[in-house]
Amino acid sequence: MSSSPPNLTGWSCPIPLRDYDRIVLGHGGGGQLSAELVEHMFIRAFGSGEELRDSAVLTPPPGRLAFSTDSYVVRPLFFPGGSIGDLSVNGTVNDLAMSGAQPLGLSCGFILEEGLEMTVLGRVVEEMAEAARIAGTTIVTGDTKVVDKGAADQLFINTAGIGLIPDGIDIRPDRATPGDIVIISGDIGVHGIAVLSQREGIEFGTGVVSDSAALNGLVTEMLRVCPDIHVLRDPTRGGVAASLCEIASAAGVGISYTDSLLPIPGEVAAACSFLGLDPMTIANEGKLIAIVPAHAAEEVLGAMHDHANGAGAVIIGSITENHPGVVVAKTAFGATRVVDLPLGEVLPRIC
Amino acid sequence: MSSSPPNLTGWSCPIPLRDYDRIVLGHGGGGQLSAELVEHMFIRAFGSGEELRDSAVLTPPPGRLAFSTDSYVVRPLFFPGGSIGDLSVNGTVNDLAMSGAQPLGLSCGFILEEGLEMTVLGRVVEEMAEAARIAGTTIVTGDTKVVDKGAADQLFINTAGIGLIPDGIDIRPDRATPGDIVIISGDIGVHGIAVLSQREGIEFGTGVVSDSAALNGLVTEMLRVCPDIHVLRDPTRGGVAASLCEIASAAGVGISYTDSLLPIPGEVAAACSFLGLDPMTIANEGKLIAIVPAHAAEEVLGAMHDHANGAGAVIIGSITENHPGVVVAKTAFGATRVVDLPLGEVLPRIC
Repeated sequence: MSSSPPNLTGWSCPIPLRDYDRIVLGHGGGGQLSAELVEHMFIRAFGSGEELRDSAVLTPPPGRLAFSTDSYVVRPLFFPGGSIGDLSVNGTVNDLAMSGAQPLGLSCGFILEEGLEMTVLGRVVEEMAEAARIAGTTIVTGDTKVVDKGAADQLFINTAGIGLIPDGIDIRPDRATPGDIVIISGDIGVHGIAVLSQREGIEFGTGVVSDSAALNGLVTEMLRVCPDIHVLRDPTRGGVAASLCEIASAAGVGISYTDSLLPIPGEVAAACSFLGLDPMTIANEGKLIAIVPAHAAEEVLGAMHDHANGAGAVIIGSITENHPGVVVAKTAFGATRVVDLPLGEVLPRIC
Repeated sequence: MSSSPPNLTGWSCPIPLRDYDRIVLGHGGGGQLSAELVEHMFIRAFGSGEELRDSAVLTPPPGRLAFSTDSYVVRPLFFPGGSIGDLSVNGTVNDLAMSGAQPLGLSCGFILEEGLEMTVLGRVVEEMAEAARIAGTTIVTGDTKVVDKGAADQLFINTAGIGLIPDGIDIRPDRATPGDIVIISGDIGVHGIAVLSQREGIEFGTGVVSDSAALNGLVTEMLRVCPDIHVLRDPTRGGVAASLCEIASAAGVGISYTDSLLPIPGEVAAACSFLGLDPMTIANEGKLIAIVPAHAAEEVLGAMHDHANGAGAVIIGSITENHPGVVVAKTAFGATRVVDLPLGEVLPRIC
């Protein structure tokens, strides 16, 4: 949780990988070197005694399954509050949680650049394993490809996840209904600013730490008090602005929120101000937007406040039948302004 | 199925992607450009009217699920008989099929290099959609990341898949049992040689065409005549040699095969000869190794011969209690030789 670079020399493989201290093409070749990498690094970190086979066998209870995938290309690989490792687990766990699903297992596909330091990979893998442990899930199957030096930037990770949606839960963007209340689970903009503050060429001093976290535990507590939550969304790329625009569009409703209610930390506001960015379009990796029936809003908010990942939850607005498909912000001066879906990318490679 | 480069100008997006003819960072930004790419390219190719959401909801019948993932980094992107597109679908369908599973749905994660021609992506996406159609499955969820120019080599794809394993089927490497028969479904080495023949700097003339194909249909027919198939394996990276070594090791049995029974096309043998490669270690993308009880071998072979993807199936050897964990080849001169798990990678980026 410090902003200084991680101590990469802290990781060491208990069984030397034939004394390779860097990834070579052969580690992706399907032969002995691949087998050693899987056995001594991946199974050691991810396995529970069981083999990490080409395909895993799961026997879920009957019901609906959520299925999701994300690739992770964040740079730098390690940043204040997290790394590509925990991000790659939390991001996919959160995609599942936004359907109300609890993860049954994750897959993991590595694309490694020839020459990657083994200690960097080891550190990433351990952070993935730890993130999975915290989220209450495991990495059950995987794949590793190695590309020649220069054909990738160090390390990319894809994870996919399967989750079980409890009976009676029906969470989707088009369920936003006029009268519903819009809640955000805490401070916005911190992940993007934390990563950006470490980006080569534009480093700046800040105490902002990524919010990278698995949200399935928080969602469980919210569903316990209100199984009829209408919409959940983790505002990653495109930020809160993009998520609200997409929900308004999917449900054909208007969304209205109040600028002054947005939980924007002072350091994020300051960084955005000097970088010319809008905190509403900055990626978050441990926050959720919940859209809930008005009668349940206070109870959901209470449940969120009782959970570490929702302690800063606040109501920011509501769903309206006015201006369908459009998101409107109420400004400090009592005026209103239309919030647009951002065009492209303000911060490339933020996740 | 020709060895000439594909006509990339043949693909055109019916709705212009804001006249972008190349991928820009904004296409991975989660805003309007991302939404347009998803809507006009991905949903058009993969969707069946339904939305391609961050997470898909599946309701499988009760039972065991296979879950698998692979990333694809093959170069060149298009090669005789296939492309990274159909490979990325067939490879994951085949991983599932090797557990006897039929695919319920695939996920797809793109990592795109800034500057990639839109026509190249469009062509790849259409080939993925067509491969999924042939395999009888669909791409139900996805993700796109764009990295800056030079940070990736054109285009990487990850797919993950969920498949349903029929009741009573129990296929895994450690079920290989002394007395079992080893069958290979057809010509070996063709995928690797087809890709290599197009590799920049070493192009050579050959009529060899990749065997990239989905094998779930073939497996269904094999299981129909013998539900007690012990082991299935698609010999991709590391080739038939690596697959046999892994099975011998997993089951603690010996495997013995006869060199002269291996179906190696003349052109593959010739290419391997002048490149100094062993066809047994070359990747295949539309072949399987089946290990079946002796009493069922002829019937399984017959079912394979009746299917296009198994027309060239032959018996190459058997499982023995001699030399546990070791694969032995009988040579043309009546001698035997130990077959080793290849060390690393003879042909990088073959899939």
